[in-house]
Amino acid sequence: MSKIEARLEELGLELPTPMPAFGTFKPVKVYEGIGFISGHGPFDGDKVLVEGAVGREVSLEEGYRAAKLVALAIMASLKQELGDLDRVQEWLRVVGYVQGAPGFHDNPKVVNGFSDTVVEVWGEAGRHARSAPGQGSSPLNVPVIVDAVVAVT
Amino acid sequence: MSKIEARLEELGLELPTPMPAFGTFKPVKVYEGIGFISGHGPFDGDKVLVEGAVGREVSLEEGYRAAKLVALAIMASLKQELGDLDRVQEWLRVVGYVQGAPGFHDNPKVVNGFSDTVVEVWGEAGRHARSAPGQGSSPLNVPVIVDAVVAVT
Amino acid sequence: MSKIEARLEELGLELPTPMPAFGTFKPVKVYEGIGFISGHGPFDGDKVLVEGAVGREVSLEEGYRAAKLVALAIMASLKQELGDLDRVQEWLRVVGYVQGAPGFHDNPKVVNGFSDTVVEVWGEAGRHARSAPGQGSSPLNVPVIVDAVVAVT
Repeated sequence: MSKIEARLEELGLELPTPMPAFGTFKPVKVYEGIGFISGHGPFDGDKVLVEGAVGREVSLEEGYRAAKLVALAIMASLKQELGDLDRVQEWLRVVGYVQGAPGFHDNPKVVNGFSDTVVEVWGEAGRHARSAPGQGSSPLNVPVIVDAVVAVT
Repeated sequence: MSKIEARLEELGLELPTPMPAFGTFKPVKVYEGIGFISGHGPFDGDKVLVEGAVGREVSLEEGYRAAKLVALAIMASLKQELGDLDRVQEWLRVVGYVQGAPGFHDNPKVVNGFSDTVVEVWGEAGRHARSAPGQGSSPLNVPVIVDAVVAVT
Repeated sequence: MSKIEARLEELGLELPTPMPAFGTFKPVKVYEGIGFISGHGPFDGDKVLVEGAVGREVSLEEGYRAAKLVALAIMASLKQELGDLDRVQEWLRVVGYVQGAPGFHDNPKVVNGFSDTVVEVWGEAGRHARSAPGQGSSPLNVPVIVDAVVAVT
């Protein structure tokens, strides 16, 4: 069994259905050992699991939890593209775009839900450079989307 | 004749004047086979072709069309930097930052105007990872800016 | 003495205390000759030096100056991670996310404070591809955050 899958099981984390490949872009594009990951929200297949702005419809705790769901959605896309999550060697760069209410400035605490989850699963190799800018109106009204760059074998 | 230029002609697409190299940044920076492309709006040289927020001054259809103009503006910058668009081998990663009105959440349908155009011209090699976050107040009040990373020879 | 440090001294620029490594991400992640830099604001250690939206609490000139402080904050993180700033060979890609007041569209003039500083210090090698999208509500209410990708030896 894949080491990463074993770790997910140990943590009680289940992957959702991967984001469908709608439109002309790819959920994950791999080129010469680098995986470029499209923006994902808290999705299960084509279902949106959390909607609203953090600090308004969505609490900070729910925003953190939504970012964790984004991590799981991205892992599902990586598994679909790569076959085996063990092929993800290092997490390099993450941008978490937070849809916060006006005056909400705890973006980093939301995106921690993503980063913490990746590091729980991958350990030190999961530690990445990260930005947590605020969005304007988000795609599909999700509280947070994340894109990322990883090293793959 | 360049294959990509022949394809542009076949599709009836004309490139605008490249974005002028104002300031201390570069429209395109190439390093070891990777081209990093600056944020471009729907520009023709220093002229801004579309202004406003999608869902307010700019309709969804006009936003899609603006994103298509951004694709052409980026191709013009790539041609200027690389000499020949055939040197662009693969489109890897695209971020389309959409200036939407409050409550506008169809960002992906706007940025499709960019992605569809790139894939029409480059085919499968044009398919890329993509994000479509919402912006706050955009540079020069454009409805959408796009930056990208490509593989070049 | 490091060439870059000599240049900083010549320009009268002093580096702040590096951003503390709070949370599960890294201020700078290096992988195979590429340095991925986390989003930084105008920070001195854990102190936020400038707060507010450009065009409201923060003037354009103050925004430019804040972006210059972000450049210094990033240099401090690079020095901490790399030991010697001379190891930064080329600046490749920069995103400056500007928290502007509604109707503020001079984002590029703000982010110039970052780009101009990097080019003053590194010269031609400092010229980079760049985007200057508008943010919604920024982390810690800073007027601008910047993330970047550099080539390192």
